[in-house]
Amino acid sequence: ICMSCQDLIKKMDMVRMCSQRTTCILRCTGGEALNAFSIATYEIDQKRGTDYYKRFNEFAKNFQENDLTAAQGMTDVRGDRSLKPHQQPDPDMYLRVVDERSDGIVVRGAKAHISGAPVMHEIFVMPSRTMRKEDRDFAVAFVVPSDAKGLTHVVNTTFREEGKEDDHPFSSKYSSAESFLFFDDVFIPEERVFMCGEHEFSRRLVLAFSTPHRHSRLACSSGITDILTGASALAAEYNGIQNVSHIRDKINELLLMSESYYALGISAATLASKTASGTYMPNILHTNVGKVMTARGLHEAIRLTQDVAGGLVQTVPSSKTYQNKALAERLDKYLKAKDTVPTQHRVRLFRFLQDLTTYGWAGFWLVVSAVGAGSPYGAKLIASREVDLEEKKKLIKRLCGIQE
Amino acid sequence: ICMSCQDLIKKMDMVRMCSQRTTCILRCTGGEALNAFSIATYEIDQKRGTDYYKRFNEFAKNFQENDLTAAQGMTDVRGDRSLKPHQQPDPDMYLRVVDERSDGIVVRGAKAHISGAPVMHEIFVMPSRTMRKEDRDFAVAFVVPSDAKGLTHVVNTTFREEGKEDDHPFSSKYSSAESFLFFDDVFIPEERVFMCGEHEFSRRLVLAFSTPHRHSRLACSSGITDILTGASALAAEYNGIQNVSHIRDKINELLLMSESYYALGISAATLASKTASGTYMPNILHTNVGKVMTARGLHEAIRLTQDVAGGLVQTVPSSKTYQNKALAERLDKYLKAKDTVPTQHRVRLFRFLQDLTTYGWAGFWLVVSAVGAGSPYGAKLIASREVDLEEKKKLIKRLCGIQE
Amino acid sequence: ICMSCQDLIKKMDMVRMCSQRTTCILRCTGGEALNAFSIATYEIDQKRGTDYYKRFNEFAKNFQENDLTAAQGMTDVRGDRSLKPHQQPDPDMYLRVVDERSDGIVVRGAKAHISGAPVMHEIFVMPSRTMRKEDRDFAVAFVVPSDAKGLTHVVNTTFREEGKEDDHPFSSKYSSAESFLFFDDVFIPEERVFMCGEHEFSRRLVLAFSTPHRHSRLACSSGITDILTGASALAAEYNGIQNVSHIRDKINELLLMSESYYALGISAATLASKTASGTYMPNILHTNVGKVMTARGLHEAIRLTQDVAGGLVQTVPSSKTYQNKALAERLDKYLKAKDTVPTQHRVRLFRFLQDLTTYGWAGFWLVVSAVGAGSPYGAKLIASREVDLEEKKKLIKRLCGIQE
Amino acid sequence: ICMSCQDLIKKMDMVRMCSQRTTCILRCTGGEALNAFSIATYEIDQKRGTDYYKRFNEFAKNFQENDLTAAQGMTDVRGDRSLKPHQQPDPDMYLRVVDERSDGIVVRGAKAHISGAPVMHEIFVMPSRTMRKEDRDFAVAFVVPSDAKGLTHVVNTTFREEGKEDDHPFSSKYSSAESFLFFDDVFIPEERVFMCGEHEFSRRLVLAFSTPHRHSRLACSSGITDILTGASALAAEYNGIQNVSHIRDKINELLLMSESYYALGISAATLASKTASGTYMPNILHTNVGKVMTARGLHEAIRLTQDVAGGLVQTVPSSKTYQNKALAERLDKYLKAKDTVPTQHRVRLFRFLQDLTTYGWAGFWLVVSAVGAGSPYGAKLIASREVDLEEKKKLIKRLCGIQE
Ligand SMILES: Cc1cc2nc3c(=O)[nH]c(=O)nc-3n(C[C@H](O)[C@H](O)[C@H](O)COP(=O)(O)OP(=O)(O)OC[C@H]3O[C@@H](n4cnc5c(N)ncnc54)[C@H](O)[C@@H]3O)c2cc1C
Ligand SMILES: Cc1cc2nc3c(=O)[nH]c(=O)nc-3n(C[C@H](O)[C@H](O)[C@H](O)COP(=O)(O)OP(=O)(O)OC[C@H]3O[C@@H](n4cnc5c(N)ncnc54)[C@H](O)[C@@H]3O)c2cc1C
Ligand SMILES: Cc1cc2nc3c(=O)[nH]c(=O)nc-3n(C[C@H](O)[C@H](O)[C@H](O)COP(=O)(O)OP(=O)(O)OC[C@H]3O[C@@H](n4cnc5c(N)ncnc54)[C@H](O)[C@@H]3O)c2cc1C
Ligand SMILES: Cc1cc2nc3c(=O)[nH]c(=O)nc-3n(C[C@H](O)[C@H](O)[C@H](O)COP(=O)(O)OP(=O)(O)OC[C@H]3O[C@@H](n4cnc5c(N)ncnc54)[C@H](O)[C@@H]3O)c2cc1C
Repeated sequence: ICMSCQDLIKKMDMVRMCSQRTTCILRCTGGEALNAFSIATYEIDQKRGTDYYKRFNEFAKNFQENDLTAAQGMTDVRGDRSLKPHQQPDPDMYLRVVDERSDGIVVRGAKAHISGAPVMHEIFVMPSRTMRKEDRDFAVAFVVPSDAKGLTHVVNTTFREEGKEDDHPFSSKYSSAESFLFFDDVFIPEERVFMCGEHEFSRRLVLAFSTPHRHSRLACSSGITDILTGASALAAEYNGIQNVSHIRDKINELLLMSESYYALGISAATLASKTASGTYMPNILHTNVGKVMTARGLHEAIRLTQDVAGGLVQTVPSSKTYQNKALAERLDKYLKAKDTVPTQHRVRLFRFLQDLTTYGWAGFWLVVSAVGAGSPYGAKLIASREVDLEEKKKLIKRLCGIQE
Repeated sequence: ICMSCQDLIKKMDMVRMCSQRTTCILRCTGGEALNAFSIATYEIDQKRGTDYYKRFNEFAKNFQENDLTAAQGMTDVRGDRSLKPHQQPDPDMYLRVVDERSDGIVVRGAKAHISGAPVMHEIFVMPSRTMRKEDRDFAVAFVVPSDAKGLTHVVNTTFREEGKEDDHPFSSKYSSAESFLFFDDVFIPEERVFMCGEHEFSRRLVLAFSTPHRHSRLACSSGITDILTGASALAAEYNGIQNVSHIRDKINELLLMSESYYALGISAATLASKTASGTYMPNILHTNVGKVMTARGLHEAIRLTQDVAGGLVQTVPSSKTYQNKALAERLDKYLKAKDTVPTQHRVRLFRFLQDLTTYGWAGFWLVVSAVGAGSPYGAKLIASREVDLEEKKKLIKRLCGIQE
Repeated sequence: ICMSCQDLIKKMDMVRMCSQRTTCILRCTGGEALNAFSIATYEIDQKRGTDYYKRFNEFAKNFQENDLTAAQGMTDVRGDRSLKPHQQPDPDMYLRVVDERSDGIVVRGAKAHISGAPVMHEIFVMPSRTMRKEDRDFAVAFVVPSDAKGLTHVVNTTFREEGKEDDHPFSSKYSSAESFLFFDDVFIPEERVFMCGEHEFSRRLVLAFSTPHRHSRLACSSGITDILTGASALAAEYNGIQNVSHIRDKINELLLMSESYYALGISAATLASKTASGTYMPNILHTNVGKVMTARGLHEAIRLTQDVAGGLVQTVPSSKTYQNKALAERLDKYLKAKDTVPTQHRVRLFRFLQDLTTYGWAGFWLVVSAVGAGSPYGAKLIASREVDLEEKKKLIKRLCGIQE
Repeated sequence: ICMSCQDLIKKMDMVRMCSQRTTCILRCTGGEALNAFSIATYEIDQKRGTDYYKRFNEFAKNFQENDLTAAQGMTDVRGDRSLKPHQQPDPDMYLRVVDERSDGIVVRGAKAHISGAPVMHEIFVMPSRTMRKEDRDFAVAFVVPSDAKGLTHVVNTTFREEGKEDDHPFSSKYSSAESFLFFDDVFIPEERVFMCGEHEFSRRLVLAFSTPHRHSRLACSSGITDILTGASALAAEYNGIQNVSHIRDKINELLLMSESYYALGISAATLASKTASGTYMPNILHTNVGKVMTARGLHEAIRLTQDVAGGLVQTVPSSKTYQNKALAERLDKYLKAKDTVPTQHRVRLFRFLQDLTTYGWAGFWLVVSAVGAGSPYGAKLIASREVDLEEKKKLIKRLCGIQE
């Protein structure tokens, strides 16, 4: 839990560094959920006299002491996106409370696209949008063991697991997995419930999670772009064109992208605000401005990388082909580029580039960038709400000499 | 062979239509090679008194009568890209003539990334760049059966062939394959040789091929973007957000992209020039302006599509998951979006979207867009050479009243 | 009046050429109005049995024989843009018929931003939007002499007229003027009325004007960008940096812009449709795709030009400063750049660049690009309506195997 | 002089706030020069045993105590940009030492585009580029009173001074002025000389000035974009379209731009480094990443503003027109938009918008954005030098398993 601006900067640096190695730190959402609940439960208690914060703290203490891991279940399946939760023909399109008992609650519904859920100990669950009075039953948050009774995972793993390390230097080692979680009337004991019906805090809880989460996404987007930058630079060197000016310019554009995400994260950390509970929340405005940037950036970054590297990204021969000795010899002859670079190094690099920009890994990151952690449209809205447009209009009236 | 502007427009329409169905028409390069040779051999003969045009015509007649197919082998492996052919440490980095006999020539070297080569009857081979006097041995062009003696294919097929139709509605049906072609002293009989040493025509031959080829790429880029447009629109409808204005705007941006490629193609056809042999060559300037556009467009188009469609693009469950009856039931419940649309239709659409934007097919097209048919940098150069900048400067001098 | 695709291509070429010399051909709107009426009056007559086409033809014959000129009054002042004409608190916010007499009609209202009106013989007037039944009184079109009784011009001329040629090589010669036109119950004799209440044709008339007009705008945007291209190239030469690669790349970007507008125009001409009256209408889709491009391009083109040329664009000394002999000598010494170029040539060029990119002329063209000939938002809507999205969705259903 | 990260953040906030009122704080360069000299003189002394830091500190003490103002003379006229200083045909193209006396030095040459010079007390002078050994004579820095003997100003003021406040609510109040400064063998006494021949520190001095200067430019670019944002929002309100989604989206884009510049500034301040003298220097990388962003942004921001506001930006009638009572009445009637907003307010706002986006002020800021404070190309280069690309390549080799 981040208790200062400095903590948030350290988090940025840690996430960026990890992403430079594995692209995804995976444990980010769990940590962000901790931050979110520490902020929101405190505030609910203050206004409603509940004791969520105490409950949460006890859970968190145990969680941290045992170095447990958690996934974050926020996204509802949402059915028809033009309808509010209570307007949906099937009321289970947003996860909801179906029974309140003396010792806990019973929930039903589903959560979609939950990263890492099957390999985590716990799953934090919270609403995916602001809930109004009519949607009170959907304003529910809690934590549940990932093997709880009545909870079903439908997992998709997105990468070619079967690939040998030679062919998939990256995705043979790192993978990801998202779950659909089905809650068939799952019982959640009282001490694990952190919100139940306090709909007027749903927006706060959503923000308290999505802000640090998007903040981390700035760091990992930066780390991933660092990888693409380094790989482009290496490809240019191996191809003998590292001094060509349009190539250098493209690599520089990658650098600018990477640093601009990081800078937005640093700025959001520096301008973070201390919440009532003492937890620091990254600046909402700058976090979301950054989020919009990243959503627009990765597809372009991959384009630049492929442009620098050339067609071999797509056609680099597999290790199976290389097993044929006669072919291997010719491949070594003809895939040679810069004289001082062993062909095998070039082949490995291009397999890496292929792995990163043309297969499942690329697809995963393209989708994550485009809509993961919320769509850019939503991020733009949140950013714009943080700006006082009326104040800016007043400024203009003064400059124009308009008196009302 | 296109004998009028109207022919070129018809070609555009045919390629766009095919691409809307399969994304790739595959037979394009062969046809473009026919055009290229019909132009260049005629012009060589005129100046050099050779009889390439006659040879070519005889070949072409038989080729067309039997509805044969051909791949196009242009791209050399190129070694160190900062060196010219004759400067390469290994002289085989560009395909070259190693022996001239009375009845033909012997060639050595390799061609890279050749689309469709293993399934074609013939392979057209030509230089991949302008050759100067010192590089005369590399100024060679011919046609060779794809199973010629001494010719080895190293094929990579880029798609998940194993996928069932259910999971990969698209790539289970359509696939692509590129070859590395190794020429180990392959003999080419005289009547199949269409250029041998006439280096001053190499630039012309390159342009005579790359121009109609890039022209076709305008059509297929348009067709592919049409697919993304339709799929985005359908996803929006199924998700219940087809009237949301940012969604409509994104779909409109896709429309604009698609039409702008097509329009550049129409314009290049309209302003095509009749060459000495009677074959029409699309306008070089507009073709290359369009090529630069397409190179910048597809990554962005995929981003917009994923943004409109949402995270399910990545996480849509496979048919295997669906075989589990209990899961299938829940999936059907929770993946329902708009009330009137059967969940199975939505699932199929998202598998299609996944197939198209996150797996091998996407990777293939991303790379093809980024550098296929030549890098955008090269296309920009060619375009700029078609514009008389000195004329434009003179105009300014006149407007400024500068007299020299 | 354009009677073939070839005519439309010739118009493109003529407008581009004129714009390369003066940026604005000014007489374009009048010609486009002729085209618009020839199309719409014919179609109204066919359905309504009116005789507008005959009236119009008689007018046009005389107009052309005497080589008269006309402005085009389309844009209404429009009041609150969220309200339809009949909903406006003041009914005069859109020009309307206030009286129908046996020999003609009486109109009241205003037209805004009308280019060239005070120097033209005639003014064509037509609705600025689709009118529904409730807005029938606003569905009126006619032609009126620019000095008609009851018609007041409020003219703004946007350029520094006072400038000497030396300081303003461009704007001292070419200028523009827009009028607000106030119609205080102006009488329009019957034979000059071309639409009166046939609201269901208002959309057609609007399109029949805006399409050829936007089509011409593609040509003049191209011509203006040609000027910026030439001026950038000359500045680079004079500064000694014409071979620097980022400079060449920026000039190439300008080339691409200019040609892409032109290509869209050629394509729209090639795919033009013959209307019932025989007049050809440029392809609506491609015209509007191009219009959106131009609206996004000029600000960027000016940025590139200024980047290439440098700060002297802003600070080039005036001719008054040069009158001081002692200063003139030093200026000549210190403003010298490339050795072979007389300083005075460089000074003239930078005054031209200043004139074009930092003063009234720039402002004029920036606004015209941003919203003139209708806002890009509107153009995008029109473009999107020309595309059959349902057809594209059907294609996807077929590709996905979705059967309804 | 900024002695901590916090100081730099305060500077950002102050400059942004001032720019929101006047667009330009004007006194920024003087302050930045103070920072630059405090850093560089200290470091020269350390290595060379000179006493520049003492000299400078004495000067600075007096300067600050009397609240004096200073301009910053950096930009040389530079002649042929492809040649180094000592290669220029005329050696005076870069300012240089022509005589060294016991009590001071004599300098000759010119400085170009110097903001505010004629209204300042002092002018700081320093090299505009890295100087090598051969260019030692050009490695000179000092401070000179703006009315020194032998120093001539050629001033251009870029705004319509003559404008009445009514017509030019903005530029009638705020203006700018740049000078060419000619140094005709000006004597600079020893105690005012801060560098003389120490060429190996020229790069450091250039960076020590340009970094805080570009850092301030992030703040003023943000302030200016704030003005455009507010003005767009007010125009939308007055036109009755503030709830239209494409309009809101455009205003949101302006918000994002403004905040992204500011965030880069905050990040550069947070990651500032303490130099040997104790002065803090903003992070060079993030400052220059931000500088590139701003160079790309303003032209686009003006485009968006004009798109939102509409054609009246160009054609709003002048106060002179309004003096005609009969016209004034009609103008008031027809320029009314939203019912509750007095027409006069709308007119004032659009005059303000005209003033800001179509006249001299716009021209000034467009050029300043495009190349002021150094061209974006240069900024990109500096940014890229701050990144250790070799480190990034090593990372990739490790990820690929490439061992050398
Ligand atoms: C790989 C991956 C990992 C993920 N991991 C997690 C995780 O660990 N935990 C978690 O909780 N979530 C996770 N998510 C979910 C992610 O947050 C969502 O994908 C995201 O919020 C978008 O929601 P959606 O996929 O339902 O798309 P949709 O909401 O359907 O969005 C598609 C488009 O429709 C628009 N749209 C939708 N509704 C409206 C409306 N009412 N008005 C206007 N526009 C609308 C959106 O702006 C967007 O452009 C993950 C997603 C992915 C792809
Ligand atoms: C899927 C696919 C299918 C293909 N099908 C065919 C086919 O059927 N027939 C065929 O002949 N070819 C085919 N190609 C090859 C294609 O034309 C080439 O990929 C393309 O021309 C780029 O060449 P390259 O891959 O060697 O990349 P490179 O040439 O290495 O280019 C990489 C980058 O380096 C730059 N660069 C390279 N050299 C220089 C230089 N000297 N100066 C400045 N910049 C330089 C390029 O501009 C580019 O940005 C195919 C390619 C792909 C990916
Ligand atoms: C220099 C110049 C010369 C011109 N010459 C002529 C001419 O000769 N003849 C002629 O007839 N016209 C002429 N025009 C007018 C031009 O066609 C209009 O400026 C243009 O149509 C935009 O209209 P507007 O200025 O009223 O702006 P607005 O319509 O106010 O537009 C401003 C913004 O609001 C948006 N908007 C407005 N209403 C709505 C709505 N209901 N829903 C959604 N968005 C909306 C627009 O999309 C735009 O983004 C000229 C304009 C200029 C600047
Ligand atoms: C309004 C205004 C106010 C200013 N105020 C000040 C001030 O107060 N103090 C001050 O010192 N300066 C000031 N400047 C100067 C400003 O810093 C310069 O304009 C800027 O550094 C660009 O230099 P330049 O104008 O000589 O353009 P150039 O250097 O001629 O640049 C034009 C283009 O050429 C490129 N270029 C030039 N040389 C090369 C090369 N060798 N290799 C590759 N590319 C090259 C540049 O990247 C750029 O794209 C001001 C400028 C303006 C416009």
